[in-house]
Amino acid sequence: MRGPTHNRHTVAGMVDAISRFPVREPHELPDDLRERVGAIADRSGFAPNVFLALGHRPRELRAFLDYHDAVMEREDSSLTKAERELVVVATSGANSCTYCVVAHGAILRIRARDPRIADRVATNPWTVELSDRQRAIVDLALALAVEPATFSETDLEDARDAGLTDDEIWDVGAITALFALSNRIAHLTALRPNDEFYLMGRLPRD
Amino acid sequence: MRGPTHNRHTVAGMVDAISRFPVREPHELPDDLRERVGAIADRSGFAPNVFLALGHRPRELRAFLDYHDAVMEREDSSLTKAERELVVVATSGANSCTYCVVAHGAILRIRARDPRIADRVATNPWTVELSDRQRAIVDLALALAVEPATFSETDLEDARDAGLTDDEIWDVGAITALFALSNRIAHLTALRPNDEFYLMGRLPRD
Amino acid sequence: MRGPTHNRHTVAGMVDAISRFPVREPHELPDDLRERVGAIADRSGFAPNVFLALGHRPRELRAFLDYHDAVMEREDSSLTKAERELVVVATSGANSCTYCVVAHGAILRIRARDPRIADRVATNPWTVELSDRQRAIVDLALALAVEPATFSETDLEDARDAGLTDDEIWDVGAITALFALSNRIAHLTALRPNDEFYLMGRLPRD
Amino acid sequence: MRGPTHNRHTVAGMVDAISRFPVREPHELPDDLRERVGAIADRSGFAPNVFLALGHRPRELRAFLDYHDAVMEREDSSLTKAERELVVVATSGANSCTYCVVAHGAILRIRARDPRIADRVATNPWTVELSDRQRAIVDLALALAVEPATFSETDLEDARDAGLTDDEIWDVGAITALFALSNRIAHLTALRPNDEFYLMGRLPRD
Amino acid sequence: MRGPTHNRHTVAGMVDAISRFPVREPHELPDDLRERVGAIADRSGFAPNVFLALGHRPRELRAFLDYHDAVMEREDSSLTKAERELVVVATSGANSCTYCVVAHGAILRIRARDPRIADRVATNPWTVELSDRQRAIVDLALALAVEPATFSETDLEDARDAGLTDDEIWDVGAITALFALSNRIAHLTALRPNDEFYLMGRLPRD
Amino acid sequence: MRGPTHNRHTVAGMVDAISRFPVREPHELPDDLRERVGAIADRSGFAPNVFLALGHRPRELRAFLDYHDAVMEREDSSLTKAERELVVVATSGANSCTYCVVAHGAILRIRARDPRIADRVATNPWTVELSDRQRAIVDLALALAVEPATFSETDLEDARDAGLTDDEIWDVGAITALFALSNRIAHLTALRPNDEFYLMGRLPRD
Repeated sequence: MRGPTHNRHTVAGMVDAISRFPVREPHELPDDLRERVGAIADRSGFAPNVFLALGHRPRELRAFLDYHDAVMEREDSSLTKAERELVVVATSGANSCTYCVVAHGAILRIRARDPRIADRVATNPWTVELSDRQRAIVDLALALAVEPATFSETDLEDARDAGLTDDEIWDVGAITALFALSNRIAHLTALRPNDEFYLMGRLPRD
Repeated sequence: MRGPTHNRHTVAGMVDAISRFPVREPHELPDDLRERVGAIADRSGFAPNVFLALGHRPRELRAFLDYHDAVMEREDSSLTKAERELVVVATSGANSCTYCVVAHGAILRIRARDPRIADRVATNPWTVELSDRQRAIVDLALALAVEPATFSETDLEDARDAGLTDDEIWDVGAITALFALSNRIAHLTALRPNDEFYLMGRLPRD
Repeated sequence: MRGPTHNRHTVAGMVDAISRFPVREPHELPDDLRERVGAIADRSGFAPNVFLALGHRPRELRAFLDYHDAVMEREDSSLTKAERELVVVATSGANSCTYCVVAHGAILRIRARDPRIADRVATNPWTVELSDRQRAIVDLALALAVEPATFSETDLEDARDAGLTDDEIWDVGAITALFALSNRIAHLTALRPNDEFYLMGRLPRD
Repeated sequence: MRGPTHNRHTVAGMVDAISRFPVREPHELPDDLRERVGAIADRSGFAPNVFLALGHRPRELRAFLDYHDAVMEREDSSLTKAERELVVVATSGANSCTYCVVAHGAILRIRARDPRIADRVATNPWTVELSDRQRAIVDLALALAVEPATFSETDLEDARDAGLTDDEIWDVGAITALFALSNRIAHLTALRPNDEFYLMGRLPRD
Repeated sequence: MRGPTHNRHTVAGMVDAISRFPVREPHELPDDLRERVGAIADRSGFAPNVFLALGHRPRELRAFLDYHDAVMEREDSSLTKAERELVVVATSGANSCTYCVVAHGAILRIRARDPRIADRVATNPWTVELSDRQRAIVDLALALAVEPATFSETDLEDARDAGLTDDEIWDVGAITALFALSNRIAHLTALRPNDEFYLMGRLPRD
Repeated sequence: MRGPTHNRHTVAGMVDAISRFPVREPHELPDDLRERVGAIADRSGFAPNVFLALGHRPRELRAFLDYHDAVMEREDSSLTKAERELVVVATSGANSCTYCVVAHGAILRIRARDPRIADRVATNPWTVELSDRQRAIVDLALALAVEPATFSETDLEDARDAGLTDDEIWDVGAITALFALSNRIAHLTALRPNDEFYLMGRLPRD
């Protein structure tokens, strides 16, 4: 686990801790997780902090990665990868989850090849201008994320009217549900976004 | 998957479908899942509907079971099993999640050996009379479940002041996060509680 | 009035007081009230705690019983008794009123001859599956109970479109209003449901 | 009951109906109610519309009058009459109930001998400048009126710390509960305040 | 600036300060502002307290007056002056802003030549009976005032369907925006309405 | 004013209009405004869209610029320019105002010389890690921006306890009030942020 330096204060009076709880560097993880997180770190150039923070509980990290891959990497899905990130950024914006907005905002910019979409979606997912299909995806996700108690058949009908299939509706719902979990882990741990995410996908050739 | 009968209406005009989406009976699941769900069904006397509904997506069911076991069956946890169910029932009550309230209400009654606790906690988790430790657990869980955006260091301090360790705080937070996911899957699918749950733990010798 | 024992703590750390304020047993009430509450106790096998708690102020108990009978026992009403209890359980669920949910949930189970309806309605009155007429009744009641400031002609039109007569609309509204009062008396006094209510109407022959 | 004229539109395009439902003039009421409402009309110079609207259901009007007198006219109460009206105006303002704000605002001005207090309390009961005792009364009433689900021992402790007795706390709570009912009857019926109320208590000698 | 007397308490225990911050009497203002505020005071018979309070910061008072005149005195506007005040009173009522409700309520009564409209609009802007055009104006204003995050094209379409031109929509929006500012200055300063406003426009010949 | 091209759709199905209403390019503005907006455009390298959108109503643009300069450029203020932008970004984030978050986020990054602060503050102003003084500024601003009805002496006391002077409290309040207006103008017009803002202040030498 991290030494005492991970709680030092910056000049500006802010703490630069990754998490409120102890974290584990990738090399401190069990073999299978070290390999999975290592592969992600190789691709991104850095290990996203969510894996270091959840590494505190390897079994939970493993289940999280499995759930994540099951919904975010599902090959049969007819949602594009950009659409899946749209769900993540919209619901994380509605939940004011800084880690998820900053990290998945970066991925959304890259997937959608649009350097401005993430800031617009995260700041106001309710009225951001989107295509009709994107709007239907975001409306469905927001209904389930923010007011689950009143989620009803009407929400499904609206989604179907906009052309979403039941398989796509499940995908949107399952991603929303996973990030309801993920947002809360980030809030619990005061999870800090890696500095690298802030700029990813903003420059022409990113 | 279930045949067309799963959408028939009852005399009272109500639908008795288990889920808005196709479901799988345990014997239709991949081997490992059939075995896990089968073991649960053997213990309970019936297969809880959440497994039939999530069986529609075996990979997601597997990750859900893994996450569930990692937090709800964690052996090192100093939360009692009743305390873990208290977190589930309190947050599911706050989220108006019928499946989770009815199913985990049954488990809470059994774990706490109290036939009335679940109805009291689910109906009003904010003011239900509890011991100081239970109240601290429920307050922490509600803060994270219902208003994650304003979850702050103060919530942790209150929990610590009530004697919760950081390990217990993570446990409460992780269970809350998992059921934020679980509640939303139940709302997405309009998941129907098995009839058996309603009465479990209510009779003297249950 | 009850002696000091009514505030003793149970082994589990919980208080078993009926009310935050002094209560009166039926035999301590003025004659007319003793008779009315006695008749109820004879029918139910026990005196519901709300009468002991309101017995602290006999004049208010008398007016409460009169209002209750005027709307809940009204003979000309074309609402069934189960429909009236549906209004009570739905609005008390929305108000997180433990006494009213537990006590009237029991009555609803009996009136509707359905051992599961009360838990479903109380946990999520907004989306519980109901017949069209029941849904219209519950929607009207929730609008008036929870957001009275925006209750409008539209709510009445929706009710009429679903076939409710103006006489039925008044009945739903008047029951909702009475339990807006009743819920608040229960919250004020931290009114404890009688143990008997929890199980009533749950068993086949109840 | 009123003839067809009671729905005529005014020049400004507004309806001048007293209620969405049929009303009864005092002379159309049963004897005991005619007498009670008549006595009020004699004192005020006019029959307040709430009695005409509730006169549609004499039994409910009778119970309402009884409950009203039990809490608003209670002789043993150590709340002043102005303090009781303060509870009514504050909670009715929080509930945006036009009839109750206008009618009881008039009574509050008269009881408190202050021509401006009602507008200030009704517009912003949360921050209006009041004496410490008045503030404690209003805070208690607002907690119970607006967020009954989270009403707790803390609210009682705050009231006691400000010097309110338990008897006064019950009075405040019971008045709040009665007007939770009354506000909803007014919203249900779109109850129109009598023109006379608007100016009462505003002029030096009123 | 005002001397220490401006914080003295009244007999009733209330403070009669105009503002939480120092105020300036008209004669203490820079020449141009003294002239403008003086002209208003001459017309009204008194200097409205908002000018004394904002006089603490003459440059802000000047910009406020300019913005106010640009939207409230705009000569090309096809909104009547009564309609503009309707926007102010409705949004200030929704914001529980005592100064604006009392002061602009007086102006609305005079502009609309209706002694009761202000109390009705301020107490419940959501359901107060209005003409279709007035209702469209108030709905547009409330949407922007209270829930700006979800203000959308739909709100504009509803306004256009009710016959409002785009020029009128801007007027309603701009007045709403200005009083979002104005309400917050009043809340910041605990701005006290002049006694004169309470009665203005209530008497036949006012 | 802009020709018909200002409503054309982009390939991605999105509209690239600056405003829902006609806009004016700087050279179409009255002389004094052309000069003021021109000076800003010279400094920034582009004319911020808010000026083109408000240019539709030159008199309102002039008052807006005056109010803006009075509070944002006030020389006597002991709030730093970064602190003033902190107020803007925090309250605009809470109001989900895309234009203000993107445009003033850029300015905040530059003023605070911190490429990440704006995303963190805008995404979650309630819990973002800040110095004690910054936290007090943001808490005061959020209380007034989001829940003005309950803004009270307690909010001022908290600010004073954190060391803010009354002059600074007014500054924070006045900036909050101005951007309550500004946010609503942006929501009314669906104001589009200039592309340039998204990247400003994010690169080392920006």
